[in-house]
Amino acid sequence: MANPKDVGKAFVDHYYNTFDTNRSALGGLYTAEAMLTFEGTETQGQQAIQQKLSSLPFQQCKHHVASLDVQLSNANGIIVFATGQLLTEGESNPLKFSQVFHLVSSNNSFALTNDLFRLNYG
Amino acid sequence: MANPKDVGKAFVDHYYNTFDTNRSALGGLYTAEAMLTFEGTETQGQQAIQQKLSSLPFQQCKHHVASLDVQLSNANGIIVFATGQLLTEGESNPLKFSQVFHLVSSNNSFALTNDLFRLNYG
Repeated sequence: MANPKDVGKAFVDHYYNTFDTNRSALGGLYTAEAMLTFEGTETQGQQAIQQKLSSLPFQQCKHHVASLDVQLSNANGIIVFATGQLLTEGESNPLKFSQVFHLVSSNNSFALTNDLFRLNYG
Repeated sequence: MANPKDVGKAFVDHYYNTFDTNRSALGGLYTAEAMLTFEGTETQGQQAIQQKLSSLPFQQCKHHVASLDVQLSNANGIIVFATGQLLTEGESNPLKFSQVFHLVSSNNSFALTNDLFRLNYG
């Protein structure tokens, strides 16, 4: 496969750019049975995840990635671990976040099977 | 398998208790080919990971887990995502951290194949 770090970097760039500019298109990045745990709330399935992400209580936002780590998992998966800052509309102070993505190879591309997101309050 | 959340919780409790009281025993939790990315530095292999963890520039420390999320990954793996605070010797202020563990089933137990750790500076 392509260099996992390149894949992880490209995925994260695409994911957060889509989140910040066209959030309704995020669902297409997830597999049919993908799992999202967002601030402890679990959602399963591509359609349910899209609804969850679209219903978050802010419209405009901007992710800034501060660190990005990538490892191969078993079965040609890729674990991507991002930390950074999230600025939402009407807020002057960004929130720190960390997020885990697990990507699996699918049709010569990668699809998102696991997504875990947490704010790091401080 | 046992409830993944129970497995994840038990693993994290054991991992941080071992880290804080008997760090030289951590290596046994990793598979032979496990990967550790600690603050961006990559280490592969059980023995090298043990050496890396033993050589961190603090001796006494205490992990406090603030959030713990668990998902099944493909191939009966378990992804565990912890955030919390780390207090090291001589410091009065704990550091925020987040950490990802990927566990795989091995001989009726679970072994650690992927470990990614980041401090969340604030």
